Amino acid sequence: MHSSPASLPITYREKTRHADILSVGQIVSSSGFFSEAEVEVAVQLVEESLIQGSERSGYHFLFAELCDEVAGYTCYGPIPFTESSYDLYWIAVQDRFRGHGLGRDLLARTERLIAARQGRRVYVETSSREQYRPTRKFYEACGYRLEAVLQQFYSPHDDKMIYLKRLDAPV
Amino acid sequence: MHSSPASLPITYREKTRHADILSVGQIVSSSGFFSEAEVEVAVQLVEESLIQGSERSGYHFLFAELCDEVAGYTCYGPIPFTESSYDLYWIAVQDRFRGHGLGRDLLARTERLIAARQGRRVYVETSSREQYRPTRKFYEACGYRLEAVLQQFYSPHDDKMIYLKRLDAPV
Repeated sequence: MHSSPASLPITYREKTRHADILSVGQIVSSSGFFSEAEVEVAVQLVEESLIQGSERSGYHFLFAELCDEVAGYTCYGPIPFTESSYDLYWIAVQDRFRGHGLGRDLLARTERLIAARQGRRVYVETSSREQYRPTRKFYEACGYRLEAVLQQFYSPHDDKMIYLKRLDAPV
Repeated sequence: MHSSPASLPITYREKTRHADILSVGQIVSSSGFFSEAEVEVAVQLVEESLIQGSERSGYHFLFAELCDEVAGYTCYGPIPFTESSYDLYWIAVQDRFRGHGLGRDLLARTERLIAARQGRRVYVETSSREQYRPTRKFYEACGYRLEAVLQQFYSPHDDKMIYLKRLDAPV
């Protein structure tokens, strides 16, 4: 078993700060999974939240800080025109802080924040590519189930996998 | 059979104009299908296209004009981080111009524009509600097939239906 993040001096923060623009860019880049254009989008969501506020922009954040540094974060928000469905737009942990259950902890806390906002369904999208197998396993281990597949969505050999976790499901 | 739009003096236009803000608002409202918030989003996409240009905003339009009036339109665009997938964001025909095949004509022309941009897959989302049965029938009649269903996505009795038309499919 990985060590629990409970043993680490982690603090959590929801409010975005200007410095998060840099932190998010670094964290998302550090995974090596995302293209420059994707990193740019991740950063834009922070900017939108800073400019408009999280309620108006629809982009909410949860930052996990370790030794005054952002070690990981999630970005999520209500899906427009749905009653209580949420999208998890991003979840990322700084490369060197991996393997301590920080991602799992961030996701569980994010789900509690969504539930507190009366959110009942959390959707997350990923790719069918081999590279994303650990990502898919992570979501499955966190109680997400595959809800739909859009074949060849990204490219001829790359499907979109849509995972769902019902927060109101009986345990 | 409905009369062909070929018999009507329709002109087509791709470039957005300032007056389209009002036209799109009216057209989308005229259907009676959409909430005020949804109408606002339809109008915002026109504004984005006017401010940033269609390439930069990612929102492309096709307007069908009859007697110097916008009778219907589509809004579509490439889906970010996909090789050749497009979203059809909006298709709407002014209420009093319905029943002449204008929607079908607009959709076919939009698909040709997407194909000309090397788009290979067109996705469109709608609701499972009874009210949208004619919408679903319309897409099916235009060669779209149901690709995925996200159950209870909009609300407990309202699923998201994702339709797909492959533009590269053998006829």
